[in-house]
Amino acid sequence: MPDQPAYLADHQTRFLEELMDWLRIPSVSADPKFHGDVLRAADFLKSRLEEAGAVNLELCQTAGNPIVYGEYHAGPDAPTVLVYGHYDVQPADPYELWTSPPFEPVIKDEKIYARGACDDKGQVYMHVKALETMLRDGGAGVPCNIKFLFEGEEEVGSVNLETFVKANKEKLKADVILISDTGMLANDVPSIEVGLRGLSYHEVEVTGPNRDLHSGIYGGAVMNPINALCTMIASLHDENRHITIPAFYDNVEELSKEERAEMALAPFSNEEFERSIGLPTAAGEAGFSTMERTSIRPTLDVNGIWGGYTGEGAKTVIASKAYAKISMRLVPHQTSEEISALFQAHFISIAPAGVTVTVKPHHGGEPVVTPTNSVAYKAAADAMETTFGKRPVPTRGGGSIPIVAMFKSELGLDTVLLGFGLDSDAIHSPNEHYGVFNFMKGIETIPHFYRNYAAAV
Amino acid sequence: MPDQPAYLADHQTRFLEELMDWLRIPSVSADPKFHGDVLRAADFLKSRLEEAGAVNLELCQTAGNPIVYGEYHAGPDAPTVLVYGHYDVQPADPYELWTSPPFEPVIKDEKIYARGACDDKGQVYMHVKALETMLRDGGAGVPCNIKFLFEGEEEVGSVNLETFVKANKEKLKADVILISDTGMLANDVPSIEVGLRGLSYHEVEVTGPNRDLHSGIYGGAVMNPINALCTMIASLHDENRHITIPAFYDNVEELSKEERAEMALAPFSNEEFERSIGLPTAAGEAGFSTMERTSIRPTLDVNGIWGGYTGEGAKTVIASKAYAKISMRLVPHQTSEEISALFQAHFISIAPAGVTVTVKPHHGGEPVVTPTNSVAYKAAADAMETTFGKRPVPTRGGGSIPIVAMFKSELGLDTVLLGFGLDSDAIHSPNEHYGVFNFMKGIETIPHFYRNYAAAV
Repeated sequence: MPDQPAYLADHQTRFLEELMDWLRIPSVSADPKFHGDVLRAADFLKSRLEEAGAVNLELCQTAGNPIVYGEYHAGPDAPTVLVYGHYDVQPADPYELWTSPPFEPVIKDEKIYARGACDDKGQVYMHVKALETMLRDGGAGVPCNIKFLFEGEEEVGSVNLETFVKANKEKLKADVILISDTGMLANDVPSIEVGLRGLSYHEVEVTGPNRDLHSGIYGGAVMNPINALCTMIASLHDENRHITIPAFYDNVEELSKEERAEMALAPFSNEEFERSIGLPTAAGEAGFSTMERTSIRPTLDVNGIWGGYTGEGAKTVIASKAYAKISMRLVPHQTSEEISALFQAHFISIAPAGVTVTVKPHHGGEPVVTPTNSVAYKAAADAMETTFGKRPVPTRGGGSIPIVAMFKSELGLDTVLLGFGLDSDAIHSPNEHYGVFNFMKGIETIPHFYRNYAAAV
Repeated sequence: MPDQPAYLADHQTRFLEELMDWLRIPSVSADPKFHGDVLRAADFLKSRLEEAGAVNLELCQTAGNPIVYGEYHAGPDAPTVLVYGHYDVQPADPYELWTSPPFEPVIKDEKIYARGACDDKGQVYMHVKALETMLRDGGAGVPCNIKFLFEGEEEVGSVNLETFVKANKEKLKADVILISDTGMLANDVPSIEVGLRGLSYHEVEVTGPNRDLHSGIYGGAVMNPINALCTMIASLHDENRHITIPAFYDNVEELSKEERAEMALAPFSNEEFERSIGLPTAAGEAGFSTMERTSIRPTLDVNGIWGGYTGEGAKTVIASKAYAKISMRLVPHQTSEEISALFQAHFISIAPAGVTVTVKPHHGGEPVVTPTNSVAYKAAADAMETTFGKRPVPTRGGGSIPIVAMFKSELGLDTVLLGFGLDSDAIHSPNEHYGVFNFMKGIETIPHFYRNYAAAV
């Protein structure tokens, strides 16, 4: 094996500059005004993949943003790994809370600051540079066939991916799926996520009077839609922070005492958790630890709320309408379809007299648990052990990658979540960043996965 | 008495054009970007008052927007009436709900549509044109001394008026105050408001984590500030829509059965009320009628709420902060200072673990009841009876004109609320308008008030 880390060290500056060029393209999929940038980001990725040594590059058209596809051919006897990631990013607002502009990446304290630095452009770009590293003059080569599948709609629910996958089952045939879009416990505590929560996301609209009213003339005699919305939202949790939607917990996977005891062994400090996000105290469902609350338990959060006068000063108005975005994280055996139906029926049923309510579902996603006894998981764990010098811990994550369940049902493939982010990377928040250490460690680790996997199957 | 209505009819078009010129100036006091327009609106009013025959015109500087002041001198033996009004207007947003732009007045169906058409530029301009009418060639003259006092900060709480009044007690010496900034029950049911609710207005901020968080990674383990705010707001009313703030009702004036029975005689249709604002049903405090809920009972309404992601599509975020504007309407014997203190203490006390709360009070105002047995009230009621052909009904209004209580305490003067608006004028809402009938009826009625008042004192 050649001295790969030396090659990485020699080219680190260029690797980072290339990533930063990509991060300068604001590929925000949720906002139509960035559509041209989304297309530019796809083109950029396709070109870099080709330069790294991929073949059969394509921009696959969908009803939405294109899928960047490419291949590497090791030979008919080699196993095939399907690498999935996404080149779109979350909206960057509130812009004013960024200490440097979200689309002008900078490196500070050995971290790249930009929207998408970690989620998921930084992690996708590790795969591009890992391919280059393996194929460069003197590189060890790649012992696996690879199919690269990078979409541009992950942050808006992968709305067109399933259609694409269904129509291209032969093209996407593989032995396992490899995704870098998750995190580790810490840079000195490598870990691999083996569980993900699902998602059910809704926008609700509460309508009272047919126009905004003067709160003096009408106040007291009409149900204020904002007050009504608050009352409805408040009623979704009881005093133990249990969710009150009837039948919500019916299918929730209950872990055994032993499983919970094993989870509790993972290194985790509640005080450090609170300190890292500036909280006086963590808070959540009674009877569960912070780690359990963010992994094995379903949740309900309001992601946004708005209505009435929000400008400067005082306006004495009763708004005609109030809105909220409300999402639930789901755990194994709950399905987004079932939970969305329960939520919609319940939310409409709790509208107080004097208002009407509509519920519009956004995208959903299914919870998954991936096996830890598979050849692929072992190949990933061994790769991390080689590069980090420590055996990674299997963990259950709180986020959702809905396509993992979809790949399982459509392609029959398991996924390995070989992610290098940290919870503190502030993905989906202002000042998202990604450690240079993590970026380079990913490029170093991925080739070991291919070698371990090819050797074992 | 000359044939005044004929003069009005001859000059109606010009009167309306002048008002519309004034309405074109967006004198929004709540938003600093309109500051220049506020000053232009003050200049416009000063010039028109002078043209109408007022003397000693002044733009009185304050720490905020200037006060337009002018006088008319009838003679040392004539009584003096202080006419108050305001030339500033409410913000016009949401602009997209206006059927014609808020600062491009148009007349449709015999109504002037523009922000401020009724509140209060249209009603102030009636006083300017009433003066012109009385003083024109052949007019009957004015039997009272008049002091005109028009401020530019009523919609932001009259923050500098009290200081001005305290410093100018001699200048403002008068026998009674006349204000046209309220409404009537209907064009064929003239009425005069004899009670106004007070106001206590607050902006609240709920802070959770020190940055926006990913709702998957953190969801379930942190108190979401939006959920917390909703829970706090929901708890401010019980299931009977009573307000739950301790001691809130302690000083509320309770009306006798007889007084309530008398109120119930005023013409009012619940069905018409519901239909006019497109509600399936009116709703409010148990045990009180719609008319009582909007007049003799205190209320609490959220006037605005915001937090988290409010753009298009789905963002899975737990916001660091959530905000609301919350106001209460007060009834006699409650004071804004007392209620603000109760609200602040209570709202902070109900913050759940995991969030911190700040409460910033905006302006307040005191509730008032004005006497119906005074010479001035009788002069106004007689004036309306002359021009409408019906005796006006005394009513208790739901809105607040905080300066009425302030004038009473600082100048010792009672106020007559000779207003010509209608509830359906959509003041503070999109598509505010003012009937041409109401505008002209005001100009016709005001001179009768001066004559009746001068004859009686």
